[in-house]
Amino acid sequence: MSDAVSDDNSTVVLTDVTLATMVAGGQPYGLIEDGVLAISGDRIAYAGTAADLPSRMQSWPSESQHGMLATPALVDCHTHMVYGGNRAREFELRLLGASYEEIAKAGGGILSTVSATRAASEDDLLDAALPRIDSFIDEGAGTVEIKSGYGLDLETELKMLRVARRIGRERPVRIETSFLAAHAIPPEYKGNADGYIDWIVREILPAAASEGLVDAVDAFCETIAFNPIQVATLFDAAVKLGLKVKLHAEQLSNMGGTALAAGYKALSADHLEYLDEQGVEAMAANGTVAVLLPGAFYTLRETKFPPLDLLRQAGVPIAVATDCNPGSSPMFSPLLAVNMACTLFRMTPEEALAGITREGARALGCLDEVGTLEVGKRADIAIWDVETPAELAYRFGINPLARRIFGGNV
Amino acid sequence: MSDAVSDDNSTVVLTDVTLATMVAGGQPYGLIEDGVLAISGDRIAYAGTAADLPSRMQSWPSESQHGMLATPALVDCHTHMVYGGNRAREFELRLLGASYEEIAKAGGGILSTVSATRAASEDDLLDAALPRIDSFIDEGAGTVEIKSGYGLDLETELKMLRVARRIGRERPVRIETSFLAAHAIPPEYKGNADGYIDWIVREILPAAASEGLVDAVDAFCETIAFNPIQVATLFDAAVKLGLKVKLHAEQLSNMGGTALAAGYKALSADHLEYLDEQGVEAMAANGTVAVLLPGAFYTLRETKFPPLDLLRQAGVPIAVATDCNPGSSPMFSPLLAVNMACTLFRMTPEEALAGITREGARALGCLDEVGTLEVGKRADIAIWDVETPAELAYRFGINPLARRIFGGNV
Ligand SMILES: [Zn+2]
Ligand SMILES: [Zn+2]
Repeated sequence: MSDAVSDDNSTVVLTDVTLATMVAGGQPYGLIEDGVLAISGDRIAYAGTAADLPSRMQSWPSESQHGMLATPALVDCHTHMVYGGNRAREFELRLLGASYEEIAKAGGGILSTVSATRAASEDDLLDAALPRIDSFIDEGAGTVEIKSGYGLDLETELKMLRVARRIGRERPVRIETSFLAAHAIPPEYKGNADGYIDWIVREILPAAASEGLVDAVDAFCETIAFNPIQVATLFDAAVKLGLKVKLHAEQLSNMGGTALAAGYKALSADHLEYLDEQGVEAMAANGTVAVLLPGAFYTLRETKFPPLDLLRQAGVPIAVATDCNPGSSPMFSPLLAVNMACTLFRMTPEEALAGITREGARALGCLDEVGTLEVGKRADIAIWDVETPAELAYRFGINPLARRIFGGNV
Repeated sequence: MSDAVSDDNSTVVLTDVTLATMVAGGQPYGLIEDGVLAISGDRIAYAGTAADLPSRMQSWPSESQHGMLATPALVDCHTHMVYGGNRAREFELRLLGASYEEIAKAGGGILSTVSATRAASEDDLLDAALPRIDSFIDEGAGTVEIKSGYGLDLETELKMLRVARRIGRERPVRIETSFLAAHAIPPEYKGNADGYIDWIVREILPAAASEGLVDAVDAFCETIAFNPIQVATLFDAAVKLGLKVKLHAEQLSNMGGTALAAGYKALSADHLEYLDEQGVEAMAANGTVAVLLPGAFYTLRETKFPPLDLLRQAGVPIAVATDCNPGSSPMFSPLLAVNMACTLFRMTPEEALAGITREGARALGCLDEVGTLEVGKRADIAIWDVETPAELAYRFGINPLARRIFGGNV
């Protein structure tokens, strides 16, 4: 069997490792004690018990993992990590007792991020984003979604998406982009959301799509943003371009956006604090993933919880993400999102960890590639210095990552 | 002036640095733009504007900090980071819906940590604690308090304190110890808290103190732990040994522990969610620091807030700490404690940062040595890649530490 070593592909067998494969339906966490992971090139060639390792792999070079825990590399399916400026001053003013009017006068709110993002060069945005993505990579992330939505014009929306693509070339991480021009109404279209949606549909989205910058189309359906009719107009345009959709929905009120999105077979509906039973049923019927964002819930000090039990009962897949953004969730730690999903939303550690691996991948439409430790998937693997997977959810503000394997490379 | 360079002590001037000196009474954060820090040996020789740098230091070797922000190294005045085992399984069981009875049957609760800590060797405890302290050091901590309290017997309480001292020798960090044998009632004394306090006072405390292991004496005053009379007995013994006291008080109910502790000129009273006006006044009259612990508030999902406005009005100094412990606050990030102090308790970023520098030092009785950037204090300095100090509170789950200087050494 030693000729296997002479494969063109590099091969390695990770031994003495506990596997949290996150494959659903069997053991909690898809747990395999006394496990082995075999990697050939950028793919997982085997994930199972040591006893069942195929004989041809037994002569591959091996490396002991000293009993540590392997999980799929984390998948964060909802971030806004490309932006200019920051909102620390606004955070401070609010805590000093400033009114919303005073903060708006001092240039606060999402439009301050829009101004700073428009003013920044592509290189500036990249330089600012790299330490952010590094924080995710340092905690074992392998796939991260990044949205546009702080440009709200043709040039800047495309600039943001180009930066997102560049991050994926500059760092060992898979980036999935979401086109979120319909994030807020730009100053130029104040009072004319219909006109802005029309511009998006006529020009901005086609331009971004034709440049290959759009993996999915997103929008913010809320009283302070876009109504379901406007979202439907955008989604119709996305469908015509062959693009998948997703939606920020039911965060601050119930607008029925989730049911609308599910009708478009949306990949996900995100936030969902105000989701009702009808919306849950629509998600279940259409395979739409519920993306819960405890970092925003925490930062905004929300008290209304997403309907976790309804989602569980209906069998809706539930993902967890950081919502990393400069306003409502300036959080850069996927592991902290896992802890917050447990502590604040009362998800179980297994649900929360599945939420930022398997279900995160499902929400991005790339579960065939990443999100579980299974043969044929990318060898995107996080090795943790913990004894049990629950420790990843229980401890917080600490990073037990021992090593990270991305596409087969350590 | 060049002969200053020939001092026996090593000298260096850090230039192009913004100083958040955290000296009270002047600019917010004691901020000095266009600042310079001069270090001689392990001491700060100058902290001020570049223009006013004493001429004899102008020829010292200099290093540009590229406009980054310097703060005092962080001071965490309340942790329980030496312990055996972990409580991830209990965390998980609770989220799976287990009752407290079931968790107790499964060996959960503080007594499970006591069992694991008793069973662990001194080396085991040290090995487990080092990654924890490293998480603090990586975020710029220079002084960390560590309590005993998971032994609840003579041997193990001393073992924990010896480990705390060893951490201070193994790592570049100052450790302050607190003797917390009166943390819970050990199984051997079930129903006989008086008897346990008597044992502490007669044997455990004197033994620990005579070995030089006790920097302060702490206790947990609560219905589930010790009443004020028992705490007073312990504090009387501490006073006789010349030791300062502090107290876990008013966390889950109002027992009047804070006023009692203030009567003993306690360094601090900690938690304080149920503190009333009388307790606040006693603290103000006696210089007792209020230590707020948002990590425990978060983990326990408390809804009763410590009386921040009363504390402010009375001029009580307010510290912030992690409460790093395996049960109610498995948090290992002082910066996250700062963010939580703002987000959950509505402290201002300046208050929260002062809480984990100047006021943390005051709570440990070492404000003459650390906690601000002032001439003559230890050169324990954190240099951050941020533009303003508020960014340290605003962002979370990310570590912008660029370098850390401890006792003058990078
Ligand atoms: Zn979002
Ligand atoms: Zn404590």
